[in-house]
Amino acid sequence: MDCIFCKIISGEIPCSKIYEDDLFIAFLDIRPIRKGHTLIVPKRHFESLFDTPVEESAAIYAVTAKVAAAVREATKSTGINIIQNNGADAGQEVFHSHIHIIPRSHDDGLKFERQHDEYSGFEEMGKLAHRIHSLTE
Amino acid sequence: MDCIFCKIISGEIPCSKIYEDDLFIAFLDIRPIRKGHTLIVPKRHFESLFDTPVEESAAIYAVTAKVAAAVREATKSTGINIIQNNGADAGQEVFHSHIHIIPRSHDDGLKFERQHDEYSGFEEMGKLAHRIHSLTE
Repeated sequence: MDCIFCKIISGEIPCSKIYEDDLFIAFLDIRPIRKGHTLIVPKRHFESLFDTPVEESAAIYAVTAKVAAAVREATKSTGINIIQNNGADAGQEVFHSHIHIIPRSHDDGLKFERQHDEYSGFEEMGKLAHRIHSLTE
Repeated sequence: MDCIFCKIISGEIPCSKIYEDDLFIAFLDIRPIRKGHTLIVPKRHFESLFDTPVEESAAIYAVTAKVAAAVREATKSTGINIIQNNGADAGQEVFHSHIHIIPRSHDDGLKFERQHDEYSGFEEMGKLAHRIHSLTE
């Protein structure tokens, strides 16, 4: 498979490795938003959260928490964004599921634009909440 | 404690609830980036990922995966961002740990700016990776 993350996992392409266990590898993003920007990647090839087994999603977040604490300390950051983009329309660029850990500091100039949509009112919210709820069952 | 999420969890403040189990509650963000923008919140008050027990972080991501699939289907989205902001400097606004699920679609106009920092080279990356790695042990 022509997947850059699979090649990193197999060792065919080098990386600045931070962490590795049986299921996951973590390494520095070569195009960092901020220095210390780290990716946590499952070794098995899943495209996104939506084809990842639930127990593997649980395990990746436990590793993410641990690696994020190390990134924070090493970069002396005061904040950390944890981001998983699922699907090209959500900004996913490599179609091998991964979680970004992005170290942040006061006035670092990075803005995640918070554009707002608006509900017409609680009735619209209630209907949508009910619809989503019914799909979790 | 004067925490808006604790008040939602206790029922003192209403919400458009999507999901609830012993540990977590999910509801619609009242100021959505996109309609269907959902928050997953642990019932116990933790400030961020960094004071959350690791097994609870694992469990929240399993719930997040399930609720995200329902949000995607209900909103007929083609992408989903999953975001956890930890610390005011990372854009955290409510200091009760939570995960955002944001439904996305093609050309929805929402941009998460991808500003770049740059490493001087592989030596700098290698040193930083080694430093972070040593802190995960």
